Amino acid sequence: MSCEFTADVLDPANPDRASRRLLGDWLAFQRAFGLKPEAAAELLREYRHPAGALAVSGVPESFDRNREIAALLRTGAVAVPLRSAAYPARLAGISDPAALLVVRGDVRALSETSVAIVGARAATVYGKQTARSLAADLARAGVVIVSGLARGIDAEAHWGALEAGGRTIAVQACGIDRVYPSEHRALADRIAASGAVVTELPLGEPPLRPYFPLRNRLISGLSTAVVIVEARERSGSLITANHAANQGRDVFAVPGPLTAPTSVGTNRLIRDGAYVVLGPDEICSELGLTREPLARPQVACELSALAVEILGALVDAPASRDELARRLGREPAEFALELVELEFANRIAEDRDGRLKIASRLR
Amino acid sequence: MSCEFTADVLDPANPDRASRRLLGDWLAFQRAFGLKPEAAAELLREYRHPAGALAVSGVPESFDRNREIAALLRTGAVAVPLRSAAYPARLAGISDPAALLVVRGDVRALSETSVAIVGARAATVYGKQTARSLAADLARAGVVIVSGLARGIDAEAHWGALEAGGRTIAVQACGIDRVYPSEHRALADRIAASGAVVTELPLGEPPLRPYFPLRNRLISGLSTAVVIVEARERSGSLITANHAANQGRDVFAVPGPLTAPTSVGTNRLIRDGAYVVLGPDEICSELGLTREPLARPQVACELSALAVEILGALVDAPASRDELARRLGREPAEFALELVELEFANRIAEDRDGRLKIASRLR
Repeated sequence: MSCEFTADVLDPANPDRASRRLLGDWLAFQRAFGLKPEAAAELLREYRHPAGALAVSGVPESFDRNREIAALLRTGAVAVPLRSAAYPARLAGISDPAALLVVRGDVRALSETSVAIVGARAATVYGKQTARSLAADLARAGVVIVSGLARGIDAEAHWGALEAGGRTIAVQACGIDRVYPSEHRALADRIAASGAVVTELPLGEPPLRPYFPLRNRLISGLSTAVVIVEARERSGSLITANHAANQGRDVFAVPGPLTAPTSVGTNRLIRDGAYVVLGPDEICSELGLTREPLARPQVACELSALAVEILGALVDAPASRDELARRLGREPAEFALELVELEFANRIAEDRDGRLKIASRLR
Repeated sequence: MSCEFTADVLDPANPDRASRRLLGDWLAFQRAFGLKPEAAAELLREYRHPAGALAVSGVPESFDRNREIAALLRTGAVAVPLRSAAYPARLAGISDPAALLVVRGDVRALSETSVAIVGARAATVYGKQTARSLAADLARAGVVIVSGLARGIDAEAHWGALEAGGRTIAVQACGIDRVYPSEHRALADRIAASGAVVTELPLGEPPLRPYFPLRNRLISGLSTAVVIVEARERSGSLITANHAANQGRDVFAVPGPLTAPTSVGTNRLIRDGAYVVLGPDEICSELGLTREPLARPQVACELSALAVEILGALVDAPASRDELARRLGREPAEFALELVELEFANRIAEDRDGRLKIASRLR
């Protein structure tokens, strides 16, 4: 019995009878207790085997072991039971680990040094570029990037890791046979090809609202540290930050303008004690990772035609705003926003007389 | 003698012989030791009177008491000796207070609850608007705003306080008969009309480079707390922050994008333990000031013609970036920067399908 309980990855393609039986027990147990992780953990402590717990509670009525195993086989996923050798130790250490992880991709990715990068769905360009750039830099340092496959920051974090040739893990709030949002299906497939797509939810489960905060505890539970890139005042990312703090994970937050609603949550996290992210180096040194110090992420800001015009007009000599307007043949209000962007991107600066000039990039 | 030493404000317009003699002694002492505040403080502890110290060191050769008093009279300033009743107690408590403060305006302003707001000369629009808005909100709560009269953040802080009908103090790095930069002469006069312009430097002294870090210790020394709004990697504002910390003042820093060179210094200050400024309320509550809670400062962002066009194109229905380009008859790259600004200003947002929509302002 104890040998079964510590069985490794349960693969629906494995024809071995005992293995199929054990997988069937686990899938039934997941169907019965998958949404009550604390009750599940307690039952498993008591009965030491899913079949024991099921004998007490009864198997869900409509549950058909063979149909379920066949359905899992079609998704290409495997199942990793709690306390099996393949179950990620970090996640096993939280108070409410998933009883059964369903994993599409490489199970070993779940046990590597990893950093969660999460944030607002409705993110700003600054937030998205920062998420992508942090993910890429950390991935290059060998860190696995964990996120939630959502629109906005999450998707950028996954893409950043992939583009850097690194590995990434998506934790879903629905069954492994579904992808939410559906337009991220291709992204999910790319993630699974080198990293992993993970869920604790049974097959077919839709992405219901209450699943998201539960899912968030797995994002932080799987990770060595958590980075919140952008978060509004009331935001799911703050729930992840909370889980992370309770689980003893380092919480990092990316600072932003106090006038940006998307930075209210992150700036508050910093006030409340989160590490402030200045760049990938801080995260690595906090995690004890050695890596070549990188320059701060340079946002590859695509310049608008107007911004290029402005730079062109300042190349030969600095100009006051009025003088610049004359050179461009435009009203100052027409290019005021471009000036802000060019300033933030350190492309232009004011000289001692308040005139605009091309910024020296040799700092 | 001790009565002279604790004399109050020394006014060059006061015809009283003893007062003129004392003022002359102090001005001579300032000329001899004004740039060595620690030596000056030690001499004053030892000799308990400027004349005593001067008897040892000798009066500077070219020094003419009557000419100096007449010159001070022309500036409209008065002199406030260390340990006089009018000398601000907070400043007297630091290790290297000014031996003699030369003050144009209301000496009492130096002893009120005050917050220094300082930062980069080459500041961004975000930084300038934040400085102005914080200064205005704090001034409305009765706080005196201290700054350095420099271009950029400093000037915005002074103007913010003045526009709110509050009081502000400018600490100069040159003699009281000069204004640096010279285009801030009108601002300096407005500051002196309700608050004060202050220096420890003798008449006629130009704004030499080494005076600025010395001046910065007075900015923090005069203040209950110090707010750094924007600061580059190596910045004079960081010297002020250092002075402030050594003097036991609360240090606040305004967060900004990690991609903005003007926020590198402030974000680092936050990492190193400075309070993160989320709005004026945090500063007030930290200082134990009661005030009506204000909304976070809304940057009154002037919209460009193109930004107005964008909002107009989105009023009736959300649109993808491509659809928006069609509606505007423009290339997406032409208005990408406007979209960033409109996002940061919370005027537009992405809906669940990634389409741009007018942001609900009812958060």
